[in-house]
Amino acid sequence: ARKPSKSQPKPCKNFVLYYHDIMFGVDDVQNATSAAVTNPPGLGNFKFGKLVIFDDPMTIDKNFQSEPVARAQGFYFYDMKNDYNAWFAYTLVFNSTQHKGTLNIMGADLMMVQSRDLSVVGGTGDFFMSRGIVTFETDTFEGAKYFRVKMDIKLYECY
Amino acid sequence: ARKPSKSQPKPCKNFVLYYHDIMFGVDDVQNATSAAVTNPPGLGNFKFGKLVIFDDPMTIDKNFQSEPVARAQGFYFYDMKNDYNAWFAYTLVFNSTQHKGTLNIMGADLMMVQSRDLSVVGGTGDFFMSRGIVTFETDTFEGAKYFRVKMDIKLYECY
Repeated sequence: ARKPSKSQPKPCKNFVLYYHDIMFGVDDVQNATSAAVTNPPGLGNFKFGKLVIFDDPMTIDKNFQSEPVARAQGFYFYDMKNDYNAWFAYTLVFNSTQHKGTLNIMGADLMMVQSRDLSVVGGTGDFFMSRGIVTFETDTFEGAKYFRVKMDIKLYECY
Repeated sequence: ARKPSKSQPKPCKNFVLYYHDIMFGVDDVQNATSAAVTNPPGLGNFKFGKLVIFDDPMTIDKNFQSEPVARAQGFYFYDMKNDYNAWFAYTLVFNSTQHKGTLNIMGADLMMVQSRDLSVVGGTGDFFMSRGIVTFETDTFEGAKYFRVKMDIKLYECY
């Protein structure tokens, strides 16, 4: 039988936020929150090499028009020939009465897996020297224009 | 009054260096230390999406012509629609009699904040498995050609 996975410890901090990405087209500067900065080189049909820079709102609920509690600033790119798959590096920037500080995150966004983990590799301010895991779950997407990811942030090292 | 920020421990290693970035134009290969590799897609007027790769000198004083004590190798990009804001991932490469090794750093460069923190996520050589915080302060800039950042490097985990 499969080796039972080591039970993971209880996080010292845990919160769930929704990440909203609205891709810049040609004329919607007002609403867009991200923009592609490379042209995919044609390696397969799943946007391999498309790199997107973002400043995306993070909300407590699923509504992208809710007041953001943080901003996600960073980039992702698509990196698979025969299916959609991505890679992320970004910072969660908190600037509210509740939280002041940042969390730095990177890892593989294995899009065809229902829930996938990335690493929180560091934190600053209220999150001084924190480390942990973020679990991504694709919540919804509308063509190439908008997608929402549920991000379950679990810190296992808190100062 | 503002909640007194939790006292941060004393760093096990701490040094301040100046980062100098001289942007490649058209004909100044000799002096340039960085170059843009994307064309900003037009999302706002603050260079959103401009991605710059650099191999920049790090000096002990403010003079970019002083002998560098390290090189900063990595990239930054601008990522905000309505103000200047950036994101960095880079390595400090030390190759002197004093230090041999590297420090790996990433995070949000919140340019409109006087001093802002990024994460030292790892280290090698003399900095084996180190972790900590780097505080950025913009020291000066000359148009789009040159800028200098004071980087206060504080390691809180040293082997």
